[in-house]
Amino acid sequence: MSKIQYSVAELAERFSLEFRGDGTRIIDGVGTLAGAGPSQLSFLSNSKYAVQLGNTRAGVVVLHQDAAEACPTAALVARDPYVAYAHIAALFERLPAAVPGIHPSAVVAAGARVHPSASIGPCCVVDDGAVIEEGVVLGPHCIIGAECVVGAQSRLVARVTLVTRVTLGKRVLVHPGAVIGSDGFGLAFDRDHWVKLPQLGGVRIGDDCEIGANTTIDRGALDDTVLEEDVRLDNQIQIAHNVYVGAHTAMAGCAAVAGSAKIGRYCMIGGNAGVLGHLELADRVTITAKSLVTHSIREAGEYSSGVPLQENRQWRRNAARFKHLDEYARRLSALEKDKNDD
Amino acid sequence: MSKIQYSVAELAERFSLEFRGDGTRIIDGVGTLAGAGPSQLSFLSNSKYAVQLGNTRAGVVVLHQDAAEACPTAALVARDPYVAYAHIAALFERLPAAVPGIHPSAVVAAGARVHPSASIGPCCVVDDGAVIEEGVVLGPHCIIGAECVVGAQSRLVARVTLVTRVTLGKRVLVHPGAVIGSDGFGLAFDRDHWVKLPQLGGVRIGDDCEIGANTTIDRGALDDTVLEEDVRLDNQIQIAHNVYVGAHTAMAGCAAVAGSAKIGRYCMIGGNAGVLGHLELADRVTITAKSLVTHSIREAGEYSSGVPLQENRQWRRNAARFKHLDEYARRLSALEKDKNDD
Amino acid sequence: MSKIQYSVAELAERFSLEFRGDGTRIIDGVGTLAGAGPSQLSFLSNSKYAVQLGNTRAGVVVLHQDAAEACPTAALVARDPYVAYAHIAALFERLPAAVPGIHPSAVVAAGARVHPSASIGPCCVVDDGAVIEEGVVLGPHCIIGAECVVGAQSRLVARVTLVTRVTLGKRVLVHPGAVIGSDGFGLAFDRDHWVKLPQLGGVRIGDDCEIGANTTIDRGALDDTVLEEDVRLDNQIQIAHNVYVGAHTAMAGCAAVAGSAKIGRYCMIGGNAGVLGHLELADRVTITAKSLVTHSIREAGEYSSGVPLQENRQWRRNAARFKHLDEYARRLSALEKDKNDD
Repeated sequence: MSKIQYSVAELAERFSLEFRGDGTRIIDGVGTLAGAGPSQLSFLSNSKYAVQLGNTRAGVVVLHQDAAEACPTAALVARDPYVAYAHIAALFERLPAAVPGIHPSAVVAAGARVHPSASIGPCCVVDDGAVIEEGVVLGPHCIIGAECVVGAQSRLVARVTLVTRVTLGKRVLVHPGAVIGSDGFGLAFDRDHWVKLPQLGGVRIGDDCEIGANTTIDRGALDDTVLEEDVRLDNQIQIAHNVYVGAHTAMAGCAAVAGSAKIGRYCMIGGNAGVLGHLELADRVTITAKSLVTHSIREAGEYSSGVPLQENRQWRRNAARFKHLDEYARRLSALEKDKNDD
Repeated sequence: MSKIQYSVAELAERFSLEFRGDGTRIIDGVGTLAGAGPSQLSFLSNSKYAVQLGNTRAGVVVLHQDAAEACPTAALVARDPYVAYAHIAALFERLPAAVPGIHPSAVVAAGARVHPSASIGPCCVVDDGAVIEEGVVLGPHCIIGAECVVGAQSRLVARVTLVTRVTLGKRVLVHPGAVIGSDGFGLAFDRDHWVKLPQLGGVRIGDDCEIGANTTIDRGALDDTVLEEDVRLDNQIQIAHNVYVGAHTAMAGCAAVAGSAKIGRYCMIGGNAGVLGHLELADRVTITAKSLVTHSIREAGEYSSGVPLQENRQWRRNAARFKHLDEYARRLSALEKDKNDD
Repeated sequence: MSKIQYSVAELAERFSLEFRGDGTRIIDGVGTLAGAGPSQLSFLSNSKYAVQLGNTRAGVVVLHQDAAEACPTAALVARDPYVAYAHIAALFERLPAAVPGIHPSAVVAAGARVHPSASIGPCCVVDDGAVIEEGVVLGPHCIIGAECVVGAQSRLVARVTLVTRVTLGKRVLVHPGAVIGSDGFGLAFDRDHWVKLPQLGGVRIGDDCEIGANTTIDRGALDDTVLEEDVRLDNQIQIAHNVYVGAHTAMAGCAAVAGSAKIGRYCMIGGNAGVLGHLELADRVTITAKSLVTHSIREAGEYSSGVPLQENRQWRRNAARFKHLDEYARRLSALEKDKNDD
């Protein structure tokens, strides 16, 4: 493999950044401030790491102009160094080469429509009525069910299952083990046993979404489950049937949203946080990790539940008292009343 | 594909319901009150949606007799409209056609027993000693390990793994990514390292169970892990080794049950709720979402843990106080004592 | 299959245990105290089960010398009966036979290096540059991506995905559905949309680790995500990018560790517990089930968060009071002040 190489001046021009120091220096990779060598680029975004800047051996550092003075090597000055770094680092990523065409071990139904530029990996199964658009890459072991559409330039890394009636937009990235479009969990209780509600809707995923490993997104009961564009889901997230997620919302690992909840745009749902069914969250709502949302939220802002971690022996004493909190509040009020009656 | 069509009168007769209005109207699908058109059936079960009844364009609505007066179109009157709707809607579900026989890409061991009416999908692997009964459908990429039995009419949608010694009853439905029968998590600590306990039991799943996407059910250490009949598990549920789940119990997404716990019949375990190991839950116990069950529950009823969601700044103040709750309770008692001593 | 058989005396010698009673008795399996028959071995480790000892029909029982007197059958006396049992039971485990060689349905790239003693199961996909060492067993449907190494004697049970730049040590055991080496969740927010950070690191897993079903371990952004030797992860665990887990640490089902957290050696992380990003946990820290670690922990010990489960009606009253805890604490202080001012 040939090396990927850029001079500092080339990077500055390509990303419209100002550079300081030696523009001819050749960069062939990226690394942390502590670990990068003279042919690597690093970045300083979180001030917590500013102390590492003085000792870095990196060839060039992407940073805010406030930090440029302190930089012992070449610098690329950016309004937002983390964003600039994200764009630059993408140059050095080597994605597995995807050869257009269908691997001989793949099973593609006669009624599937596969664009000739698409790459269908080993052991993929593409059902009748599925559509695979231009430039799509299906890694090994992907299953594309009936009436599913994979939008142009999307990449399903490996072992992704689209069950039925799933539409992915353009440039969607899906990680291994994700299951999209399986039956929503719909049951009616008939005296002494459960009756299953057929799940007749689908799933629509907007452009530029990313879906993490082993994440599950169920299809709707009647209407569709929807993710608008640029929604970013980490691993092991559970999206129930008929959930609606607004554009640019991000959810960290193990978050879960119950049926028919509607999440706004630009929300941030923390790790293992949960949202109960049928609730609505406004735009720009942040839920901290492991919190449970039990009522709709009408205003942007940060919301939390839970109690702090303590050494177990102390925690036990406090937790035991929680069971009597209502009683304590009443006793407190009684004392106050007594005092006022004095 | 030919259309699925029934007249309102045919539906009434088939499901023993009374109809009001035009019985000759032809229905070819289902939809929400807000979205259904004149050839579609809808339902009104949750009174929250009663306000939509007056404006529905649905051809017929399944509803309780109390709502029949207000219905602007034909009506099917049911004791429990949701259950009646579940049965009717199933008529309009189009399951992927399953052709009996073994797909050429499947790998079926010589020592496996596959009923000729069963359908074994692309890339399935069926081990020696496995038994696939009458009318079973294995979607693509299912793995059926040694000593596993898939009961008659069961359907493994796609990419389901039965590891070893797993027996599924009749009409069991398993969604993609589920792993049933993997090693329980059994470890003994030997001075400075872990020793693995071999997991020699199996898993037994009763008739009419449903297992969600990416759910995991471990096999037992010595005895089996058991789900009785009609147990309904949503996605990403974790059932540890030697758990016993009584009939008709349902668990919502991301619930988890630790080893050797015994859950009663007709229980409802909320989303992301947890049950610690070796506990017992009586029949008809409901656990609300994200609660942790830390002691056995002897009586039917609803149980909860957790604290309510608040705006983060308020929550921080309250959460910080939780660390001193025991102290507050003591101070409160001291004040009361002082008062009484006065 | 021939029977696996040992006399009690043979077992005693093999594991350096003392035996009491009939050493010639033949043992061909293991079982619980309540369920084992005369040709089976059982064990007594948890004193909770001591009451079952008197009635056991087991052929021999592994137990501590304190319990030997009460044993109605042959006994194997061990310092730690659970550890001794773990070693003995392993004799009776029948792992699926693994035939060296590559199954004809597997797709192995020309540039992959597969040791001739390794067994590559049906439908496996091994990429260019991957290395499969001596005695490795890949069950069906494993995917080994570019630049991945599977160390000697490791076993990937079935349907395991190593995405890219993943190195497994020796004797690593990985259960179905696990995804190791997928993209870390790295995003930079650029005014009105997300920009993805390329994930250029890898994952390194030490010798003798065990990874549960449907567990996900992301690869690092720049440096690697690391598990030292003998780390034991249960099912559905989420390990984010650049997490570092010390040797001999065990995590129960559904635990999750956020990015760049550093967990010590010999830690125990309870079921569905969480650790926030960038925190450090000392060695020998135990976190109880469903707790959230929100600050670094410098000292060994047991730590918890959460509130106890209650009957829902009581819980509601207490939970509602939690929202005013700060106010109550102030009112309590005010009363105390008043009293002291008297």
